[in-house]
Amino acid sequence: MSTTTPQELTHPSIKDGWFKEVSDEYFPGQAMMLRVEKILHHEKSPFQDVLVFKSTDYGNVLVLDGVIQVTERDEFAYQEMITHVPLFAHPNPKKVLVIGGGDGGVLREAVKHECVESATLVEIDETVIKLSKKYLPNMAKSMTHEKVKVILQDGFKFLKDAADMEDSEKYDVIITDSSDPEGPAEAFFQKEYFKLLYNALNSNGVVISMASENVWLKVENLRKLRDICKEVFPVSECLYCTIPTYTSGQIALMCSAKNPETDVKKPVRTLSSEEESKLFRYYNKEIHEASYVLPNWADEIINGSKKN
Amino acid sequence: MSTTTPQELTHPSIKDGWFKEVSDEYFPGQAMMLRVEKILHHEKSPFQDVLVFKSTDYGNVLVLDGVIQVTERDEFAYQEMITHVPLFAHPNPKKVLVIGGGDGGVLREAVKHECVESATLVEIDETVIKLSKKYLPNMAKSMTHEKVKVILQDGFKFLKDAADMEDSEKYDVIITDSSDPEGPAEAFFQKEYFKLLYNALNSNGVVISMASENVWLKVENLRKLRDICKEVFPVSECLYCTIPTYTSGQIALMCSAKNPETDVKKPVRTLSSEEESKLFRYYNKEIHEASYVLPNWADEIINGSKKN
Repeated sequence: MSTTTPQELTHPSIKDGWFKEVSDEYFPGQAMMLRVEKILHHEKSPFQDVLVFKSTDYGNVLVLDGVIQVTERDEFAYQEMITHVPLFAHPNPKKVLVIGGGDGGVLREAVKHECVESATLVEIDETVIKLSKKYLPNMAKSMTHEKVKVILQDGFKFLKDAADMEDSEKYDVIITDSSDPEGPAEAFFQKEYFKLLYNALNSNGVVISMASENVWLKVENLRKLRDICKEVFPVSECLYCTIPTYTSGQIALMCSAKNPETDVKKPVRTLSSEEESKLFRYYNKEIHEASYVLPNWADEIINGSKKN
Repeated sequence: MSTTTPQELTHPSIKDGWFKEVSDEYFPGQAMMLRVEKILHHEKSPFQDVLVFKSTDYGNVLVLDGVIQVTERDEFAYQEMITHVPLFAHPNPKKVLVIGGGDGGVLREAVKHECVESATLVEIDETVIKLSKKYLPNMAKSMTHEKVKVILQDGFKFLKDAADMEDSEKYDVIITDSSDPEGPAEAFFQKEYFKLLYNALNSNGVVISMASENVWLKVENLRKLRDICKEVFPVSECLYCTIPTYTSGQIALMCSAKNPETDVKKPVRTLSSEEESKLFRYYNKEIHEASYVLPNWADEIINGSKKN
């Protein structure tokens, strides 16, 4: 009798037991490494290279096209900030749209708001959803929530189709939880996309986008992104969230509003500290405002010369 | 005739052209890498392993005992925050003491305050000073400033000797710019050290210490450090500074005051935005306050249950 050992999975970004994130284009000369306990899954989906591994210290990790998307240990920082900043900047968000975000983490946060009546996820890559359900269950758990609807479609196309909706059908908050501009998310960083977002929002609508960059990397790209948003929206501001497994330890977000009176920097609804403590691990009302405060050099580049 | 090639320097932390920062004790399972253009210097000083290399994208880098201390590209974030937060929290700082900080960066920032009359640096390792002058000239340039005095001595011993000074001789601001707790800086994280700081400060004195950890690593150690400080000082608060080449992209600082009326979270002196813009790349009066705002989970651990 002979026994067969299942073949060990391999991936070009994993060597000697460490995953290494390198990109000569996006962050030349620096790299983040995570120690790998086990490769759980690897496939080329129709859209991207999808890798899931179990790390020794950051839980399970989802990697798309070689770039870390989420780790179980620190994902809450990003998910909470990209969700609660726009939702608390809106007086009464009922209808939420998530573009991308196939891991489900944003949905999990959105349904924490009792006022939210529906949260629609539009994800292009079914593989991400399937693997998240299997390997990132704490993120994906809200995909079956009664307020949630999951649509397998290109977000760009979905928004185009949504342009003709009645104002009452439009969204209060839209969250672009995309991957980086190369690959399937490229269109999400162009002016055309922000026009579609504008048209899909109702008149008090708020939108937030993952900005891909941060102030420590290509800060000029944040300025460009803000300029694009400012051409479309009367209000657009850059904030950030600290997260150790994104390059340089933080990621920028761009929050815009259709109503010029909306101050996205301040929560218009707040919870007691006790409620915050029960619901959130990262977000609180003080950090909402503090996250818009940028270091001097970045503030000058992104927001132009000086603060008013 | 034959030509001799100078022998290429090597270091165990550099392999295949990349420097790798690993520590199973302090940040297991994650590592930061920087691409090396050239190793500039390596020696074992009487106190520590000292490495200087030129990176491809972060300028020259100083490494002590395998841990990145400063890179030319991002050092300003740390130097500005550890210096200007205590100095702007003090109404009229004249006498400044720096413990550690042999690269000179804190001195460079301290003498930007016109009210500062003297800045004394106490560094144990002459090698760090010598190499900084040679390879980090923009940091070390203020060592020869007329207000600056450099003393080669153990900071702990220096403070012990200072205990008998007249109150008028004591310091307005003390900055502990040490390396991590293992190695020569171990004593700087104990209660005994904070008692010495207390005794060396005059009655309105403010002190700030590099806390070694950050909220994403061993956040419980920040709670312990704050508890130690609170046993000695009536005021002690944790803040942070983002910096891509410190593990997880940020470092915590602990700021304490001898006068219970001092609010270290708020600048009591401020400059115009134009002056700030000329003098500082990271620090501004808004970021002074924002840097004390911690994510929920960290705030609860470090500051205990809930905000008042």
